Amino acid sequence: MFAAEGVRLLEESFRHRYFPEKVYYAEHLLSDRGRQLLGRLSGRRIITEAISAQVLRAIATATTPQGIVAVFKTPTVIPAELSRGDYRKILLCENISDPGNLGTLARSAIAFDFKLMLLAGNSAEPFAPKVVRSSAGAVFGLSIARMDLEEIIAFIGQRKIAVVATDVQASSDRIPAGFQKRPFMLAIGSEATGLSEAILRRADIRVRIRHAHTVESLNAAVAGSIIMSRTYHSM
Amino acid sequence: MFAAEGVRLLEESFRHRYFPEKVYYAEHLLSDRGRQLLGRLSGRRIITEAISAQVLRAIATATTPQGIVAVFKTPTVIPAELSRGDYRKILLCENISDPGNLGTLARSAIAFDFKLMLLAGNSAEPFAPKVVRSSAGAVFGLSIARMDLEEIIAFIGQRKIAVVATDVQASSDRIPAGFQKRPFMLAIGSEATGLSEAILRRADIRVRIRHAHTVESLNAAVAGSIIMSRTYHSM
Repeated sequence: MFAAEGVRLLEESFRHRYFPEKVYYAEHLLSDRGRQLLGRLSGRRIITEAISAQVLRAIATATTPQGIVAVFKTPTVIPAELSRGDYRKILLCENISDPGNLGTLARSAIAFDFKLMLLAGNSAEPFAPKVVRSSAGAVFGLSIARMDLEEIIAFIGQRKIAVVATDVQASSDRIPAGFQKRPFMLAIGSEATGLSEAILRRADIRVRIRHAHTVESLNAAVAGSIIMSRTYHSM
Repeated sequence: MFAAEGVRLLEESFRHRYFPEKVYYAEHLLSDRGRQLLGRLSGRRIITEAISAQVLRAIATATTPQGIVAVFKTPTVIPAELSRGDYRKILLCENISDPGNLGTLARSAIAFDFKLMLLAGNSAEPFAPKVVRSSAGAVFGLSIARMDLEEIIAFIGQRKIAVVATDVQASSDRIPAGFQKRPFMLAIGSEATGLSEAILRRADIRVRIRHAHTVESLNAAVAGSIIMSRTYHSM
Protein backbone atom coordinates (compact mmCIF):
# COMPACT_ATOMS: atom_id res chain seq x y z
CA MET A 1 0.00 0.00 0.00
CA PHE A 2 1.04 3.62 -0.41
CA ALA A 3 -0.38 6.98 0.62
CA ALA A 4 -1.05 10.11 -1.40
CA GLU A 5 -2.22 13.36 0.08
CA GLY A 6 -3.94 16.49 -1.08
CA VAL A 7 -6.94 17.31 -3.22
CA ARG A 8 -5.06 17.60 -6.50
CA LEU A 9 -3.42 14.16 -6.34
CA LEU A 10 -6.72 12.51 -5.48
CA GLU A 11 -8.44 14.25 -8.35
CA GLU A 12 -5.73 12.86 -10.63
CA SER A 13 -6.30 9.36 -9.30
CA PHE A 14 -9.95 9.77 -10.35
CA ARG A 15 -8.94 11.04 -13.76
CA HIS A 16 -6.91 7.87 -14.28
CA ARG A 17 -9.62 5.72 -12.67
CA TYR A 18 -7.19 4.40 -10.10
CA PHE A 19 -9.25 4.60 -6.94
CA PRO A 20 -8.06 4.58 -3.32
CA GLU A 21 -8.83 1.81 -0.85
CA LYS A 22 -9.53 4.21 1.97
CA VAL A 23 -9.51 7.95 2.55
CA TYR A 24 -8.90 9.81 5.80
CA TYR A 25 -10.07 13.40 6.10
CA ALA A 26 -10.20 16.19 8.64
CA GLU A 27 -13.38 18.19 8.18
CA HIS A 28 -11.88 21.45 9.51
CA LEU A 29 -9.01 21.43 7.03
CA LEU A 30 -11.04 20.78 3.88
CA SER A 31 -11.60 23.43 1.21
CA ASP A 32 -14.80 23.49 -0.86
CA ARG A 33 -12.94 21.60 -3.56
CA GLY A 34 -11.93 19.03 -0.96
CA ARG A 35 -15.51 18.60 0.23
CA GLN A 36 -16.65 18.15 -3.35
CA LEU A 37 -14.04 15.44 -3.83
CA LEU A 38 -15.27 13.72 -0.68
CA GLY A 39 -18.74 13.63 -2.23
CA ARG A 40 -17.36 11.89 -5.31
CA LEU A 41 -15.66 9.34 -3.05
CA SER A 42 -18.84 8.35 -1.27
CA GLY A 43 -20.57 8.14 -4.66
CA ARG A 44 -18.03 5.45 -5.52
CA ARG A 45 -18.50 3.70 -2.18
CA ILE A 46 -14.90 4.26 -1.17
CA ILE A 47 -14.45 3.95 2.59
CA THR A 48 -13.82 7.30 4.24
CA GLU A 49 -12.98 8.02 7.83
CA ALA A 50 -13.12 11.36 9.63
CA ILE A 51 -10.07 12.06 11.80
CA SER A 52 -9.04 15.08 13.84
CA ALA A 53 -7.01 17.88 12.26
CA GLN A 54 -4.27 17.05 14.74
CA VAL A 55 -4.01 13.43 13.63
CA LEU A 56 -4.16 14.40 9.97
CA ARG A 57 -1.32 16.89 10.44
CA ALA A 58 0.68 14.12 12.08
CA ILE A 59 0.30 11.69 9.17
CA ALA A 60 0.56 14.23 6.32
CA THR A 61 3.97 15.31 5.00
CA ALA A 62 2.85 18.69 3.56
CA THR A 63 3.51 21.68 5.79
CA THR A 64 -0.03 22.95 5.08
CA PRO A 65 -2.06 19.76 4.63
CA GLN A 66 -5.29 20.01 2.67
CA GLY A 67 -7.17 17.75 5.06
CA ILE A 68 -7.20 14.59 2.98
CA VAL A 69 -4.94 11.54 2.82
CA ALA A 70 -5.72 8.48 0.71
CA VAL A 71 -4.36 4.97 0.84
CA PHE A 72 -3.92 3.03 -2.41
CA LYS A 73 -2.99 -0.51 -3.28
CA THR A 74 0.44 -0.55 -4.87
CA PRO A 75 -0.19 -1.71 -8.44
CA THR A 76 1.89 -4.67 -9.47
CA VAL A 77 2.76 -5.21 -13.08
CA ILE A 78 4.05 -8.71 -13.68
CA PRO A 79 6.75 -8.69 -16.37
CA ALA A 80 5.17 -11.72 -18.09
CA GLU A 81 1.94 -9.76 -18.55
CA LEU A 82 3.72 -6.98 -20.37
CA SER A 83 4.12 -9.10 -23.48
CA ARG A 84 0.37 -9.06 -23.86
CA GLY A 85 0.11 -5.29 -23.51
CA ASP A 86 0.13 -3.03 -26.53
CA TYR A 87 2.78 -0.48 -25.61
CA ARG A 88 4.04 1.54 -28.54
CA LYS A 89 6.27 3.91 -26.58
CA ILE A 90 8.12 2.72 -23.51
CA LEU A 91 10.32 4.69 -21.13
CA LEU A 92 13.19 2.88 -19.43
CA CYS A 93 14.69 4.62 -16.39
CA GLU A 94 18.03 3.14 -15.36
CA ASN A 95 19.47 4.31 -12.05
CA ILE A 96 17.20 7.35 -11.78
CA SER A 97 17.59 7.45 -8.02
CA ASP A 98 16.35 10.98 -7.42
CA PRO A 99 12.62 10.78 -6.52
CA GLY A 100 11.89 14.24 -7.95
CA ASN A 101 13.43 13.32 -11.30
CA LEU A 102 11.62 9.99 -11.47
CA GLY A 103 8.28 11.63 -10.72
CA THR A 104 8.90 14.37 -13.28
CA LEU A 105 9.77 11.74 -15.91
CA ALA A 106 6.51 9.91 -15.14
CA ARG A 107 4.58 13.15 -15.60
CA SER A 108 6.22 13.85 -18.95
CA ALA A 109 5.89 10.22 -20.03
CA ILE A 110 2.13 10.24 -19.77
CA ALA A 111 1.95 13.70 -21.38
CA PHE A 112 3.79 12.40 -24.44
CA ASP A 113 1.96 9.07 -24.70
CA PHE A 114 4.50 6.77 -23.12
CA LYS A 115 2.23 4.42 -21.18
CA LEU A 116 4.76 1.99 -19.79
CA MET A 117 7.66 2.93 -17.53
CA LEU A 118 10.30 0.32 -16.73
CA LEU A 119 12.65 0.81 -13.79
CA ALA A 120 16.11 -0.74 -13.67
CA GLY A 121 19.10 -0.51 -11.36
CA ASN A 122 18.77 1.67 -8.31
CA SER A 123 15.90 3.81 -9.61
CA ALA A 124 13.73 5.31 -6.88
CA GLU A 125 10.66 3.56 -5.49
CA PRO A 126 7.85 4.79 -7.81
CA PHE A 127 5.17 5.05 -5.11
CA ALA A 128 7.27 6.89 -2.55
CA PRO A 129 5.55 10.12 -1.46
CA LYS A 130 8.04 12.40 -3.25
CA VAL A 131 7.76 10.51 -6.54
CA VAL A 132 3.95 10.51 -6.43
CA ARG A 133 3.95 14.25 -5.69
CA SER A 134 6.51 15.13 -8.39
CA SER A 135 4.56 13.05 -10.89
CA ALA A 136 1.48 15.23 -10.19
CA GLY A 137 -0.45 11.97 -10.08
CA ALA A 138 0.91 10.58 -13.36
CA VAL A 139 1.95 7.38 -11.57
CA PHE A 140 -1.77 6.57 -11.31
CA GLY A 141 -2.07 6.45 -15.08
CA LEU A 142 1.07 4.57 -16.08
CA SER A 143 2.00 0.92 -16.06
CA ILE A 144 5.18 0.76 -14.02
CA ALA A 145 7.37 -2.32 -13.66
CA ARG A 146 10.71 -2.87 -12.01
CA MET A 147 12.82 -5.33 -14.02
CA ASP A 148 16.41 -6.44 -14.04
CA LEU A 149 18.53 -5.97 -17.14
CA GLU A 150 18.18 -9.58 -18.29
CA GLU A 151 14.40 -9.35 -18.19
CA ILE A 152 14.51 -6.11 -20.12
CA ILE A 153 16.78 -7.53 -22.81
CA ALA A 154 14.47 -10.56 -23.12
CA PHE A 155 11.40 -8.33 -23.33
CA ILE A 156 13.00 -6.22 -26.08
CA GLY A 157 13.80 -9.35 -28.07
CA GLN A 158 10.37 -10.96 -27.69
CA ARG A 159 8.43 -7.88 -28.66
CA LYS A 160 10.92 -6.67 -31.33
CA ILE A 161 11.21 -3.31 -29.63
CA ALA A 162 13.62 -0.74 -31.05
CA VAL A 163 15.88 0.78 -28.43
CA VAL A 164 16.73 4.48 -28.36
CA ALA A 165 19.56 5.23 -25.96
CA THR A 166 20.40 8.70 -24.71
CA ASP A 167 24.14 9.13 -24.89
CA VAL A 168 26.08 12.38 -24.63
CA GLN A 169 28.47 11.03 -27.25
CA ALA A 170 25.78 10.35 -29.85
CA SER A 171 25.92 12.23 -33.14
CA SER A 172 22.18 12.37 -33.86
CA ASP A 173 19.88 14.69 -31.99
CA ARG A 174 16.56 13.24 -33.01
CA ILE A 175 14.72 9.97 -33.47
CA PRO A 176 14.00 9.47 -37.18
CA ALA A 177 10.25 9.58 -37.87
CA GLY A 178 10.33 6.24 -39.73
CA PHE A 179 11.92 4.68 -36.71
CA GLN A 180 8.87 5.42 -34.63
CA LYS A 181 6.61 3.16 -36.67
CA ARG A 182 7.48 0.13 -34.59
CA PRO A 183 7.30 -0.01 -30.80
CA PHE A 184 10.31 1.63 -29.26
CA MET A 185 11.89 2.07 -25.87
CA LEU A 186 13.59 5.31 -24.84
CA ALA A 187 16.34 4.56 -22.31
CA ILE A 188 17.42 7.26 -19.84
CA GLY A 189 20.40 6.76 -17.54
CA SER A 190 21.69 8.55 -14.48
CA GLU A 191 23.39 11.92 -14.82
CA ALA A 192 26.53 10.63 -13.18
CA THR A 193 27.15 7.48 -15.18
CA GLY A 194 24.72 7.40 -18.12
CA LEU A 195 23.33 4.08 -19.30
CA SER A 196 24.90 0.70 -18.60
CA GLU A 197 26.90 -1.03 -21.30
CA ALA A 198 24.24 -3.77 -21.48
CA ILE A 199 21.65 -1.26 -22.69
CA LEU A 200 24.02 0.79 -24.85
CA ARG A 201 25.12 -2.36 -26.68
CA ARG A 202 21.49 -3.20 -27.41
CA ALA A 203 20.64 0.29 -28.73
CA ASP A 204 19.38 0.61 -32.30
CA ILE A 205 20.03 4.32 -32.24
CA ARG A 206 21.74 6.74 -29.87
CA VAL A 207 20.54 10.28 -29.44
CA ARG A 208 21.69 13.29 -27.49
CA ILE A 209 20.40 16.82 -27.02
CA ARG A 210 22.54 19.50 -28.57
CA HIS A 211 23.48 22.18 -26.09
CA ALA A 212 26.25 24.65 -25.36
CA HIS A 213 29.41 23.35 -23.72
CA THR A 214 29.00 25.77 -20.84
CA VAL A 215 27.29 22.94 -18.96
CA GLU A 216 28.36 19.34 -18.77
CA SER A 217 24.87 17.91 -19.06
CA LEU A 218 21.19 18.60 -18.59
CA ASN A 219 19.08 17.42 -15.70
CA ALA A 220 18.07 13.78 -16.40
CA ALA A 221 14.34 14.50 -16.19
CA VAL A 222 14.70 17.48 -18.52
CA ALA A 223 16.77 15.53 -21.05
CA GLY A 224 14.31 12.63 -21.05
CA SER A 225 11.34 14.99 -21.36
CA ILE A 226 12.84 16.89 -24.29
CA ILE A 227 13.39 13.67 -26.24
CA MET A 228 9.91 12.37 -25.35
CA SER A 229 8.37 15.69 -26.48
CA ARG A 230 10.01 15.27 -29.88
CA THR A 231 8.41 11.88 -30.39
CA TYR A 232 5.03 13.40 -29.67
CA HIS A 233 5.52 16.01 -32.35
CA SER A 234 6.62 13.77 -35.13
CA MET A 235 3.76 11.34 -34.74
CA MET B 1 27.23 35.93 0.71
CA PHE B 2 26.13 32.40 -0.02
CA ALA B 3 27.64 28.95 0.43
CA ALA B 4 28.04 26.10 -2.05
CA GLU B 5 29.34 22.69 -1.12
CA GLY B 6 30.89 19.74 -2.86
CA VAL B 7 33.62 19.21 -5.40
CA ARG B 8 31.38 19.32 -8.47
CA LEU B 9 29.80 22.71 -7.70
CA LEU B 10 33.18 24.25 -7.00
CA GLU B 11 34.57 22.90 -10.25
CA GLU B 12 31.62 24.54 -12.03
CA SER B 13 32.37 27.86 -10.32
CA PHE B 14 35.87 27.59 -11.83
CA ARG B 15 34.48 26.77 -15.25
CA HIS B 16 32.44 29.96 -15.13
CA ARG B 17 35.34 31.90 -13.57
CA TYR B 18 33.22 32.86 -10.60
CA PHE B 19 35.62 32.30 -7.74
CA PRO B 20 34.83 31.86 -4.03
CA GLU B 21 35.91 34.28 -1.35
CA LYS B 22 36.89 31.57 1.06
CA VAL B 23 36.92 27.78 1.15
CA TYR B 24 36.63 25.52 4.19
CA TYR B 25 37.80 21.94 3.91
CA ALA B 26 38.19 18.85 6.06
CA GLU B 27 41.28 16.93 4.97
CA HIS B 28 39.91 13.54 6.06
CA LEU B 29 36.78 13.84 3.94
CA LEU B 30 38.45 14.89 0.68
CA SER B 31 38.69 12.60 -2.34
CA ASP B 32 41.63 12.83 -4.75
CA ARG B 33 39.50 15.03 -6.96
CA GLY B 34 38.79 17.25 -3.96
CA ARG B 35 42.49 17.53 -3.13
CA GLN B 36 43.25 18.44 -6.73
CA LEU B 37 40.63 21.17 -6.58
CA LEU B 38 42.20 22.48 -3.39
CA GLY B 39 45.48 22.78 -5.29
CA ARG B 40 43.79 24.89 -7.96
CA LEU B 41 42.37 27.13 -5.24
CA SER B 42 45.73 27.91 -3.71
CA GLY B 43 47.08 28.55 -7.23
CA ARG B 44 44.49 31.33 -7.46
CA ARG B 45 45.34 32.63 -3.98
CA ILE B 46 41.88 31.92 -2.66
CA ILE B 47 41.85 31.77 1.15
CA THR B 48 41.38 28.23 2.42
CA GLU B 49 40.95 27.06 5.98
CA ALA B 50 41.25 23.53 7.31
CA ILE B 51 38.47 22.57 9.69
CA SER B 52 37.65 19.31 11.44
CA ALA B 53 35.43 16.70 9.77
CA GLN B 54 32.99 17.22 12.63
CA VAL B 55 32.64 20.95 12.01
CA LEU B 56 32.36 20.42 8.26
CA ARG B 57 29.58 17.90 8.72
CA ALA B 58 27.79 20.41 10.92
CA ILE B 59 27.88 23.20 8.32
CA ALA B 60 27.26 21.04 5.22
CA THR B 61 23.72 20.12 4.18
CA ALA B 62 24.63 16.96 2.23
CA THR B 63 24.20 13.69 4.10
CA THR B 64 27.62 12.54 2.84
CA PRO B 65 29.62 15.78 2.57
CA GLN B 66 32.61 15.78 0.24
CA GLY B 67 34.76 17.74 2.66
CA ILE B 68 34.60 21.13 1.00
CA VAL B 69 32.35 24.16 1.49
CA ALA B 70 32.93 27.47 -0.29
CA VAL B 71 31.63 30.94 0.43
CA PHE B 72 30.84 33.26 -2.48
CA LYS B 73 29.86 36.89 -2.80
CA THR B 74 26.25 37.09 -3.97
CA PRO B 75 26.49 38.69 -7.40
CA THR B 76 24.34 41.75 -7.83
CA VAL B 77 23.07 42.72 -11.23
CA ILE B 78 21.74 46.27 -11.24
CA PRO B 79 18.74 46.56 -13.58
CA ALA B 80 20.12 49.81 -15.05
CA GLU B 81 23.27 47.95 -16.13
CA LEU B 82 21.28 45.39 -18.08
CA SER B 83 20.53 47.91 -20.82
CA ARG B 84 24.22 47.94 -21.64
CA GLY B 85 24.48 44.14 -21.79
CA ASP B 86 24.12 42.27 -25.04
CA TYR B 87 21.57 39.61 -24.16
CA ARG B 88 19.98 37.96 -27.16
CA LYS B 89 17.97 35.34 -25.27
CA ILE B 90 16.49 36.11 -21.88
CA LEU B 91 14.55 33.85 -19.54
CA LEU B 92 11.91 35.41 -17.30
CA CYS B 93 10.75 33.30 -14.36
CA GLU B 94 7.56 34.62 -12.79
CA ASN B 95 6.49 33.04 -9.50
CA ILE B 96 8.75 30.01 -9.88
CA SER B 97 8.79 29.43 -6.14
CA ASP B 98 10.06 25.85 -6.12
CA PRO B 99 13.86 25.97 -5.63
CA GLY B 100 14.41 22.72 -7.55
CA ASN B 101 12.50 24.03 -10.57
CA LEU B 102 14.31 27.38 -10.52
CA GLY B 103 17.71 25.66 -10.37
CA THR B 104 16.78 23.28 -13.17
CA LEU B 105 15.64 26.20 -15.33
CA ALA B 106 18.97 27.95 -14.71
CA ARG B 107 20.83 24.80 -15.78
CA SER B 108 18.80 24.50 -18.99
CA ALA B 109 19.05 28.25 -19.64
CA ILE B 110 22.80 28.22 -19.81
CA ALA B 111 22.77 25.00 -21.86
CA PHE B 112 20.61 26.64 -24.50
CA ASP B 113 22.43 30.00 -24.55
CA PHE B 114 20.11 32.07 -22.41
CA LYS B 115 22.58 34.18 -20.47
CA LEU B 116 20.26 36.41 -18.50
CA MET B 117 17.62 35.17 -16.07
CA LEU B 118 15.12 37.64 -14.65
CA LEU B 119 13.09 36.77 -11.57
CA ALA B 120 9.70 38.28 -10.86
CA GLY B 121 6.98 37.74 -8.28
CA ASN B 122 7.64 35.18 -5.57
CA SER B 123 10.32 33.26 -7.44
CA ALA B 124 12.77 31.44 -5.18
CA GLU B 125 15.99 33.01 -3.94
CA PRO B 126 18.53 32.10 -6.69
CA PHE B 127 21.49 31.54 -4.37
CA ALA B 128 19.66 29.37 -1.84
CA PRO B 129 21.48 26.03 -1.37
CA LYS B 130 18.78 23.98 -3.12
CA VAL B 131 18.71 26.26 -6.15
CA VAL B 132 22.50 26.28 -6.48
CA ARG B 133 22.56 22.48 -6.21
CA SER B 134 19.70 21.92 -8.69
CA SER B 135 21.38 24.31 -11.12
CA ALA B 136 24.50 22.08 -11.07
CA GLY B 137 26.46 25.33 -10.76
CA ALA B 138 24.75 27.11 -13.67
CA VAL B 139 23.93 30.05 -11.38
CA PHE B 140 27.67 30.85 -11.44
CA GLY B 141 27.53 31.43 -15.18
CA LEU B 142 24.32 33.40 -15.59
CA SER B 143 23.44 37.02 -15.01
CA ILE B 144 20.50 36.91 -12.62
CA ALA B 145 18.39 39.90 -11.63
CA ARG B 146 15.25 40.24 -9.56
CA MET B 147 12.95 42.88 -11.00
CA ASP B 148 9.39 43.97 -10.48
CA LEU B 149 6.93 43.86 -13.35
CA GLU B 150 7.18 47.59 -14.06
CA GLU B 151 10.95 47.39 -14.41
CA ILE B 152 10.59 44.40 -16.73
CA ILE B 153 8.04 46.13 -18.94
CA ALA B 154 10.30 49.21 -19.12
CA PHE B 155 13.33 47.03 -19.96
CA ILE B 156 11.41 45.27 -22.75
CA GLY B 157 10.41 48.61 -24.24
CA GLN B 158 13.88 50.20 -24.04
CA ARG B 159 15.68 47.27 -25.60
CA LYS B 160 12.89 46.38 -28.07
CA ILE B 161 12.77 42.84 -26.82
CA ALA B 162 10.20 40.46 -28.28
CA VAL B 163 8.24 38.60 -25.62
CA VAL B 164 7.37 34.91 -25.92
CA ALA B 165 4.83 33.85 -23.33
CA THR B 166 4.10 30.25 -22.42
CA ASP B 167 0.37 29.83 -22.23
CA VAL B 168 -1.58 26.57 -22.16
CA GLN B 169 -4.23 28.24 -24.30
CA ALA B 170 -1.84 29.25 -27.09
CA SER B 171 -2.37 27.80 -30.55
CA SER B 172 1.26 27.78 -31.71
CA ASP B 173 3.74 25.26 -30.42
CA ARG B 174 6.94 26.84 -31.61
CA ILE B 175 8.75 30.14 -31.86
CA PRO B 176 9.05 31.11 -35.55
CA ALA B 177 12.69 31.11 -36.67
CA GLY B 178 12.44 34.66 -38.06
CA PHE B 179 11.21 35.82 -34.70
CA GLN B 180 14.47 34.84 -33.10
CA LYS B 181 16.52 37.34 -35.10
CA ARG B 182 15.90 40.09 -32.56
CA PRO B 183 16.50 39.75 -28.83
CA PHE B 184 13.67 37.90 -27.18
CA MET B 185 12.48 37.01 -23.71
CA LEU B 186 10.87 33.68 -22.92
CA ALA B 187 8.44 34.09 -20.01
CA ILE B 188 7.63 31.10 -17.79
CA GLY B 189 4.94 31.29 -15.12
CA SER B 190 3.98 29.13 -12.18
CA GLU B 191 2.23 25.81 -12.73
CA ALA B 192 -0.71 26.86 -10.60
CA THR B 193 -1.50 30.23 -12.12
CA GLY B 194 0.56 30.70 -15.29
CA LEU B 195 1.85 34.16 -16.19
CA SER B 196 0.40 37.40 -14.90
CA GLU B 197 -1.90 39.43 -17.11
CA ALA B 198 0.75 42.19 -17.27
CA ILE B 199 3.17 39.86 -19.06
CA LEU B 200 0.56 38.08 -21.18
CA ARG B 201 -0.73 41.45 -22.47
CA ARG B 202 2.80 42.39 -23.48
CA ALA B 203 3.48 39.10 -25.32
CA ASP B 204 4.33 39.24 -29.03
CA ILE B 205 3.66 35.54 -29.34
CA ARG B 206 2.20 32.84 -27.12
CA VAL B 207 3.41 29.28 -27.28
CA ARG B 208 2.47 26.05 -25.61
CA ILE B 209 3.77 22.50 -25.73
CA ARG B 210 1.47 20.02 -27.35
CA HIS B 211 0.78 17.03 -25.13
CA ALA B 212 -1.90 14.47 -24.40
CA HIS B 213 -4.84 15.53 -22.26
CA THR B 214 -4.11 12.78 -19.77
CA VAL B 215 -2.19 15.36 -17.76
CA GLU B 216 -3.21 18.91 -17.00
CA SER B 217 0.25 20.39 -17.51
CA LEU B 218 3.95 19.66 -17.55
CA ASN B 219 6.37 20.47 -14.79
CA ALA B 220 7.32 24.18 -15.14
CA ALA B 221 11.05 23.47 -15.44
CA VAL B 222 10.41 20.79 -18.07
CA ALA B 223 8.07 23.03 -20.08
CA GLY B 224 10.55 25.93 -20.01
CA SER B 225 13.45 23.65 -20.93
CA ILE B 226 11.60 22.12 -23.89
CA ILE B 227 10.87 25.55 -25.36
CA MET B 228 14.43 26.74 -24.70
CA SER B 229 15.80 23.62 -26.41
CA ARG B 230 13.80 24.45 -29.52
CA THR B 231 15.35 27.89 -29.77
CA TYR B 232 18.79 26.32 -29.64
CA HIS B 233 18.00 24.07 -32.57
CA SER B 234 16.63 26.64 -34.90
CA MET B 235 19.52 29.08 -34.50
